[in-house]
Amino acid sequence: MHNEHSPDAAVAGPTSAITELLARFEAGQRTALARAISIVENQRPGFRELLRALHPRIGHAHRIGITGPPGAGKSTLTAALARHFRARGERVGIVAVDPTSPFTGGALLGDRIRMNEIGMDEGVFIRSMATRGSLGGLALTTREIADVMDAFGFDRVIIETVGVGQSELDIARSADSTLVVLVPESGDGIQAMKAGLMEVADLFAINKSDRPGADRLAREVAMMLHLRAGEALRDVPAHHGVDMKRAARRISGATHRARRMEEAGRQGRQAEPTPAVTRPDGPDGPDGPQPLSWEIPVLQTIADQEKGVAELADALDRHRAWLRESGELLERRRTRVADRVRDEVHRMLDRQVWQERGGEAILESSLDALVAGAETPYDVAARIVRAAGGNATDAPG
Amino acid sequence: MHNEHSPDAAVAGPTSAITELLARFEAGQRTALARAISIVENQRPGFRELLRALHPRIGHAHRIGITGPPGAGKSTLTAALARHFRARGERVGIVAVDPTSPFTGGALLGDRIRMNEIGMDEGVFIRSMATRGSLGGLALTTREIADVMDAFGFDRVIIETVGVGQSELDIARSADSTLVVLVPESGDGIQAMKAGLMEVADLFAINKSDRPGADRLAREVAMMLHLRAGEALRDVPAHHGVDMKRAARRISGATHRARRMEEAGRQGRQAEPTPAVTRPDGPDGPDGPQPLSWEIPVLQTIADQEKGVAELADALDRHRAWLRESGELLERRRTRVADRVRDEVHRMLDRQVWQERGGEAILESSLDALVAGAETPYDVAARIVRAAGGNATDAPG
Repeated sequence: MHNEHSPDAAVAGPTSAITELLARFEAGQRTALARAISIVENQRPGFRELLRALHPRIGHAHRIGITGPPGAGKSTLTAALARHFRARGERVGIVAVDPTSPFTGGALLGDRIRMNEIGMDEGVFIRSMATRGSLGGLALTTREIADVMDAFGFDRVIIETVGVGQSELDIARSADSTLVVLVPESGDGIQAMKAGLMEVADLFAINKSDRPGADRLAREVAMMLHLRAGEALRDVPAHHGVDMKRAARRISGATHRARRMEEAGRQGRQAEPTPAVTRPDGPDGPDGPQPLSWEIPVLQTIADQEKGVAELADALDRHRAWLRESGELLERRRTRVADRVRDEVHRMLDRQVWQERGGEAILESSLDALVAGAETPYDVAARIVRAAGGNATDAPG
Repeated sequence: MHNEHSPDAAVAGPTSAITELLARFEAGQRTALARAISIVENQRPGFRELLRALHPRIGHAHRIGITGPPGAGKSTLTAALARHFRARGERVGIVAVDPTSPFTGGALLGDRIRMNEIGMDEGVFIRSMATRGSLGGLALTTREIADVMDAFGFDRVIIETVGVGQSELDIARSADSTLVVLVPESGDGIQAMKAGLMEVADLFAINKSDRPGADRLAREVAMMLHLRAGEALRDVPAHHGVDMKRAARRISGATHRARRMEEAGRQGRQAEPTPAVTRPDGPDGPDGPQPLSWEIPVLQTIADQEKGVAELADALDRHRAWLRESGELLERRRTRVADRVRDEVHRMLDRQVWQERGGEAILESSLDALVAGAETPYDVAARIVRAAGGNATDAPG
């Protein structure tokens, strides 16, 4: 589990406190899960050895990201989905990324009441994370908490986050399947597009679909998906030599879909996916063998009446099956683990450059000259990189 | 202007193409400005030497960040403010960060028509930047383009961006004065708080204030500012030894306001700023000597009727005067230039670690083992850091 005998071992093996925690964690104790999450969330001593020890255990859970604009009913839908999965005997972990400001905490907490009910269930574990205006390290932490829940043995890990910016899209990238929730209000589809939500969606749910405009929005979204599919394929040459596995490793969440479409197009499969629009009480589309390209469904739900939830869960299952059969699941996991390595390298280098190798002191002693225009940010940066052992004589430009 | 004779010089002096461009730039040619911005925006060869050469020329412009939710009328208000400044004989540069998706470009471009009109004015220069779902390097680029405009000699540089996430808040941080624009619609104040906009605002404008609910929203925002002021002061001990100048250098946009309040509280000045609420056609509050703590005004505007715009411009001037007199302007510029150094160090290290020193190859050759759970992200990261010349034997945890 740990590497103290490996010539490459970077740190010592687990300390006794972590070893003890791991034993309780492996025995399935919820208190150990809670403690492990806290250690990871707050990067307390031992968080790295803990994550290292859990790493070989991850990969069972279906990670579902739920995002969308504020007020779309994401919490209610998350709770409804969790209840549905529980009724099938599955165990569910939930990471709720909550943009609650400390100043309005009371007002917004109402959203969580329904979720707290399901939190009483032994087969459900909920962790709320407040953003408090700072999303900097949150994508990283969310991914790591999802890992901890996965390692604990949950069948589904739902990551719920408000979808209003790039950082939240990074969080959605922690998921295998990303569900974007919209409500039938004027311009919601356009706002979703502005916020880049169209680019990450594997499934759409039009929630509160008993309100006027639900059908119209569903059609609008389906149409935008069509347009985008056409757009994505426009630039694809008939034959090209891109190594898709390499590309996948560098891919950003925003290009996931485009890449998948591109791949489908390149291989001569269905060139323009037809999004399926289904009513909450309507039929759920054909079952049977999964196509190699994924048709993004646009479902309608009324989460607080539990309508459309079973159909949504089925669509999520179809997406999971498609992920497995198409090889996309493996690609997404590769991307995710590569992200983890990059984040960790960045974390290590940051500490070394700024603290251990004097970057902070160089910057501080240069600030007056910088503000006065006597030194430039480029020269100071070069000095810091050299102090850190880097080569700062890079090419001009 | 450049450093080729300095023992610390990291790169050679400007190439002849850049020297020629600089001469035209310094002569005030708009085509040279446009070209300089393009070079910087796309990081074309020479962008670093260009920025280095321009660095000593920056510091004249008042940088105004305008942010707020989509649909708040930011573009219209930006255009109205620009016209107002122009009428006073000032020159105005505008950086419009446009989240337009390539798929809906047509629909959203309508917003820009009013702005294009003022773009015909020789004293105005507009640069639109599309985000296309990727905000990664945008904050950096926006800051650099604002620098180029500042160096060109504009009196005001307005940075307009949709305010829906952390990256956009980073962009707002490029400004001396940040104006948050809201509209009197249900829950707009709460959404602004959720998105962290309250934390960065120096001024609020309730735009479209002829709509119902404008007064209520203005009162709501003023009340939230009061609450927050109380909250920020709650944790402040009577005496403590924090070096505020040092703290300011590391400060994030989100804590700017809290720190200012903290400082005011610590020094026994007005403990709880009283936000001023003014109607578009009402009086504009007292003139005269500026207080050392800034009272965030909540103004009402109707941008497309030019109402409240003069009052808003006056409030921006008062804020600029306050920034200068309180020393806050210097602190913000220190923060900004420190950010620039950090970004540049990150850019240099990134290239070295991943490309020049084989990080990418190590990661790639480890991916299968990582996905299989045979290797952990922490061990692979440590190997990459060691390959880059770093010390990866960090303390556990």
